[in-house]
Amino acid sequence: MIDAKERFEQYRAMVEYWLAGRFTPAEDGADGLREAMIYSLIPGGKRVRPVLCLEFARICGGEPEDVVPVACGLELLHSYSLIHDDLPCMDDDDERRGKPSSHVKFGAGTAVLAGDCLQAEAFAAVCDAPISESARFRCCRILSGAAGIGGICGGQYMDLDDTDITAEGLTATDLCKTAALIAAACAMGAAAVGAAEETVAAARDFGAALGMAFQCRDDLLDGDGFCALLGPEKCQQMTESYTQDAYALLDKFEDTEFLRTLTEKLAGRES
Amino acid sequence: MIDAKERFEQYRAMVEYWLAGRFTPAEDGADGLREAMIYSLIPGGKRVRPVLCLEFARICGGEPEDVVPVACGLELLHSYSLIHDDLPCMDDDDERRGKPSSHVKFGAGTAVLAGDCLQAEAFAAVCDAPISESARFRCCRILSGAAGIGGICGGQYMDLDDTDITAEGLTATDLCKTAALIAAACAMGAAAVGAAEETVAAARDFGAALGMAFQCRDDLLDGDGFCALLGPEKCQQMTESYTQDAYALLDKFEDTEFLRTLTEKLAGRES
Repeated sequence: MIDAKERFEQYRAMVEYWLAGRFTPAEDGADGLREAMIYSLIPGGKRVRPVLCLEFARICGGEPEDVVPVACGLELLHSYSLIHDDLPCMDDDDERRGKPSSHVKFGAGTAVLAGDCLQAEAFAAVCDAPISESARFRCCRILSGAAGIGGICGGQYMDLDDTDITAEGLTATDLCKTAALIAAACAMGAAAVGAAEETVAAARDFGAALGMAFQCRDDLLDGDGFCALLGPEKCQQMTESYTQDAYALLDKFEDTEFLRTLTEKLAGRES
Repeated sequence: MIDAKERFEQYRAMVEYWLAGRFTPAEDGADGLREAMIYSLIPGGKRVRPVLCLEFARICGGEPEDVVPVACGLELLHSYSLIHDDLPCMDDDDERRGKPSSHVKFGAGTAVLAGDCLQAEAFAAVCDAPISESARFRCCRILSGAAGIGGICGGQYMDLDDTDITAEGLTATDLCKTAALIAAACAMGAAAVGAAEETVAAARDFGAALGMAFQCRDDLLDGDGFCALLGPEKCQQMTESYTQDAYALLDKFEDTEFLRTLTEKLAGRES
């Protein structure tokens, strides 16, 4: 029996160490931009996406250590999306993780640029990983798909424009806005260590199911999304159904105890 | 003697054709986002960056046809940067290329997302080019460098924060904001067709000199930047000096007539 909490913390520590080394204050003309990027990055959230990436690298037979820059690329992209989502012209949120959001702290211009720059640095991080060129290329391709119109940008757009939303429309929104990047995290972990395309696809499918389960559970806790649209009972059923899908998709992999525990934690009844 | 105008138009037509095929209106939840992206992309500007990329692919011994998606990735990135630069929280420009800027037409939220999405789609375009995985990887790496803190994001930040700017600070700003992407265009053309690292570096150096010459000439025409800071005579000298650097750097390549004509057009006394 593995200690899932300990492994999670090990992965997190690898991520924190890499991010802190990569993004250090410097005295140059762009120091204020760097400061804004660091403000949103460190400390961040739970680092779920990088952790998923590192674990998929491990169960696909690779060394998580080599994949840390790829995993951090996912966190950089996630961090950019949160900064832009919080902008006054988007969701207009003044707080994020218990502190003033980026535009409140630095002004909207710097917040837009900090997000823009984090997206670029996400790709740069993936390009700098100590893995084969082919693996880096595959990871860049997956990341660009999750970032674009079929991923978080398309999802955020649909979320902004959600009057008269249907269950079908909400599913499309969540698939792009939430599930695409979690799916990419799992797929990139597999691709980074040279897994076959069908293995990468299976990792992606697991991540998509986990992402949807996570979103439905979040809706249930917050009383919005599917919970507001269909009621808490139906929303709970959806959470369970996506969670079961996620578990079933893990049957294609070996050594999945950690991922099962993480799925339970993120989408299950616990906590 | 080549017909430079004809070759320029051939390259441009390849770029327009690819962009029009890649970005078509579609009926889905993100159709409004796609519309905003297309609005800024088509018709665009002169397509100088893709043209430079395609010509470097040619003089480095490759087929420009295969490099069109890479070249278009540069245009997508450029287009995103213009949308975000125009935002009220940045340069606050209401017009771009003779029509309302993106945020005036679609609102700031959609404009931010259209820019975000164009950046992601820039990397996706590079990843889809019909060239080797290694070449696509090298192009992604160059593009991410030009997009990040050492490129257009850092440059735009320095440009926003330009009180008490010195000539040194302005050079740093222009190197990031203008020259980095033009340098990347040349370097990516070479890298896309498998050129050696030193050839890619020479292409990049030419692009950086051309980008600086272009910026100084622009300052001279608009009376700002170096012209405002150092006076028109000094600004003219700088334009000529960077232009001479650019010509000298072309001596490392063969078959450079088109690039010399283009340099004259973009930075020289003509037009």
